[in-house]
Amino acid sequence: MKSLRIAVVGATGLVGSTVLKYLAQKHVPASSLCLVASQKSQGLNIDYCGESLTVTALEEFDFRQTQLAFFAAGSDVARHYAPKAVTAGNWVIDKSSCFRADAAVPLVIPSLNFECIDRSRPGIIAVPNCSTIPLNMVLQPILQLYGLKRLDVATYQAVSGAGSAGVKELEEQLQAYARGAEVQAHYFQQPILHNVLASIDRLTASGYTQEELKLQYETRKILSQPNLIVNATAVRVPVIHGHSQAVSIETEAPIDIVKLNSVLGQSAHVCCMAPNELPNPLEHATDEGMVWVGRIRQLPEDALNRVSLWLVSSNLGRGAALSAVEIAERLGVICPNKIVNHLVG
Amino acid sequence: MKSLRIAVVGATGLVGSTVLKYLAQKHVPASSLCLVASQKSQGLNIDYCGESLTVTALEEFDFRQTQLAFFAAGSDVARHYAPKAVTAGNWVIDKSSCFRADAAVPLVIPSLNFECIDRSRPGIIAVPNCSTIPLNMVLQPILQLYGLKRLDVATYQAVSGAGSAGVKELEEQLQAYARGAEVQAHYFQQPILHNVLASIDRLTASGYTQEELKLQYETRKILSQPNLIVNATAVRVPVIHGHSQAVSIETEAPIDIVKLNSVLGQSAHVCCMAPNELPNPLEHATDEGMVWVGRIRQLPEDALNRVSLWLVSSNLGRGAALSAVEIAERLGVICPNKIVNHLVG
Repeated sequence: MKSLRIAVVGATGLVGSTVLKYLAQKHVPASSLCLVASQKSQGLNIDYCGESLTVTALEEFDFRQTQLAFFAAGSDVARHYAPKAVTAGNWVIDKSSCFRADAAVPLVIPSLNFECIDRSRPGIIAVPNCSTIPLNMVLQPILQLYGLKRLDVATYQAVSGAGSAGVKELEEQLQAYARGAEVQAHYFQQPILHNVLASIDRLTASGYTQEELKLQYETRKILSQPNLIVNATAVRVPVIHGHSQAVSIETEAPIDIVKLNSVLGQSAHVCCMAPNELPNPLEHATDEGMVWVGRIRQLPEDALNRVSLWLVSSNLGRGAALSAVEIAERLGVICPNKIVNHLVG
Repeated sequence: MKSLRIAVVGATGLVGSTVLKYLAQKHVPASSLCLVASQKSQGLNIDYCGESLTVTALEEFDFRQTQLAFFAAGSDVARHYAPKAVTAGNWVIDKSSCFRADAAVPLVIPSLNFECIDRSRPGIIAVPNCSTIPLNMVLQPILQLYGLKRLDVATYQAVSGAGSAGVKELEEQLQAYARGAEVQAHYFQQPILHNVLASIDRLTASGYTQEELKLQYETRKILSQPNLIVNATAVRVPVIHGHSQAVSIETEAPIDIVKLNSVLGQSAHVCCMAPNELPNPLEHATDEGMVWVGRIRQLPEDALNRVSLWLVSSNLGRGAALSAVEIAERLGVICPNKIVNHLVG
C-alpha cells in the first residue's frame, strides 16, 4: 500500500512556503510531499526540514501521485488545475478566490464550519480571503449571541497579502528612501512606503473593489447570512505582515459587552485583550494563528445593538496557510506527528 | 500708529513652522511677527523669508505687543496663556483641543462656519482636530442635501500629526531597519515602522480614545447636529504626512450619487476624484489644502441612505496651519500681500 502524498501547488510563493512551514511543524515527512510550481521554477531545489525537494512544473505534474493538493496559486491556476486534481482523486484545498462564490464548493474556516464539507468523496474546499477568516472567527460568536444586521469594516492590510512581490516592493522602496534615492513603484500603482492605498484587487462597476466585495459574499456564505450587509474599505498599508481591521457591528439584539468579552475570549483561536492592551500587527501577527481582538467598545450615546472592535491576525498564517493546513488535519489527511495512511471519506 | 503684529506661539514646532510657511506665502512681513516658544527655544534664530527672527520664551512674552496670536502648542499652554493673550487684546487662533468643547468658544473651519465668530471684540477661536476639518468639509454639503444620521469612520493618520517627535521616530526606525539594526520605540508605545497603532491620544473609560471622541463632539458642534453619532477608530500609520479616512455615512434621505458627486465637487477646497482615481496621502496631502475625495460608492444591496467614501488631506496644512491662517485672513487681520493695519471688530 503506497503512502499518502500531498502536493503543494505554488510551493515557491509566499503562501505555499508558509504551508510548507506549517507542514514541517506538524512533522509531515519530506517523502510525503510533492512541490509544484510554474514552469519557471521547475527543477528548483527547496529545503524542507533539511531535505532538498525538487520543484515539478504544474503542467507536467501527475495528480494521480497525490491524495491531497494545497493550491496556493492564483485563480487562473486553480480554475484550470483544481478540477483535474479532484478527478485524479485529490482533495483540493484552494487559497485562491476562484471557487469561493461557487455554491457547490464549501468555503471553510476550520474552527467554524468544517462540517459543511461533504466527506463522501474528495472535492474542492475553498479557503476564504485573508481578511474574511479572522473577521468571521470573531463574528460567529456575536452572530450566535445577538444576531448580525450590518458591518462597516475598514482594513489595514499588509503588503505580504499581495505575495512576495508586495514584500519586495516595500523593502526596495524603504532601502531607496533610506539612502536618499528615488522611491519607485513597480508592483503597486503608487509607492506604498509612507502611503496607504485604498485599492486592493480590481475596481468593479459598483465602485467597490473585488477585495471589498469578497468580505461581503464570503461572510454571507460562511455564516449562512445571505442578507447581511458588509460594507468594506480595503486598504493596503506599509506593513510587512499582519492584517488589521476596524470593525463596526450592528446586531439584532442589544449587546452585553461584559458577556461579549467573555464569549469572544472562549472562542477557538480568538484572544480577547484587556481594554488597555492594543493588538498591533508587528507584535501580534504571529505564527500561532491567533486572532487578537481589542478596543471592544460602545459609544455611550449610541444604540445598544452597536459595538466596535479592532482585530489583528497573521494574513499568511491564520488568514491563509494555517487555516488550509488545519482543514487537511481535520480531514484526517495529516495529523500531528504523522501522515495518516488512509484516505478519508 | 503702530503696525499690526502677530505672535506665533509654538513657532519651533511642526504646526507652528507650517503656520510661518503659510504666512510667508501670504507675504506677511517679518517685522509683523513675534516668534514665541518654550523656555528651551529662547534665543533660537529662525529664518523667515531670508530674515532671522529670534524666539522669545512664552513666559517672558508680552502679548500687549501683538493683536493676533496663533497658538500651535499643547492644551496646557493654551489653557494658561490663551486667556492672557485675549486679555491683552489679541485674537487667539488655537490649534490645541483645549477650548474646542467650550460652548463659549467658536470652533471654526473657515469655509464652513466662520460667521459663528462674534467679531465685536477679540476672543479665542478654536481650530478643530486635523481629521475633523477635512471630514466636516465633506460632510457639510451631504448634511445640507440629505441630512446626517450616523458616521462610521476609520482613520489612517500620519506621524506628523503627533508633531516633529512622531516624524523623527518613524525616520529613525526606518534608518535603523535599513541598516539591519534594532527598531526601537521611544515616542510611540510600539514601533510605528511596519505597524499600525489604533491608539491616538489617551484611552477614556468608554473604551474610545480621546482622539476618537473629538471626531464626534467637534463634528456635532461645527455642524450644529447635537445628536449625530460619529463612531470612530483613530489609527496611526507609518505615513509621514497626510491623513486618510474611510467614511461610511448614513443620511436621513436617500442619496442620489450623481448629484452628490456634483455638489461635493463644487464645495470650497474639496476635490472630487473620478471613480478610477485614488486619493492617497503621498500624492495628495499637498500644501494647497485641498480635501481629496474618492471611492464614493453605494453597495447595491444596501439602503439608499448609505454612502461610503475615502478622503485624504494634509494634516499640517488643511488640518491645522492653513485653516488657522485662513481664519486670520477672514478676520481681516492678514490678507494676501499685506498686513491689515487696523484691528478687526
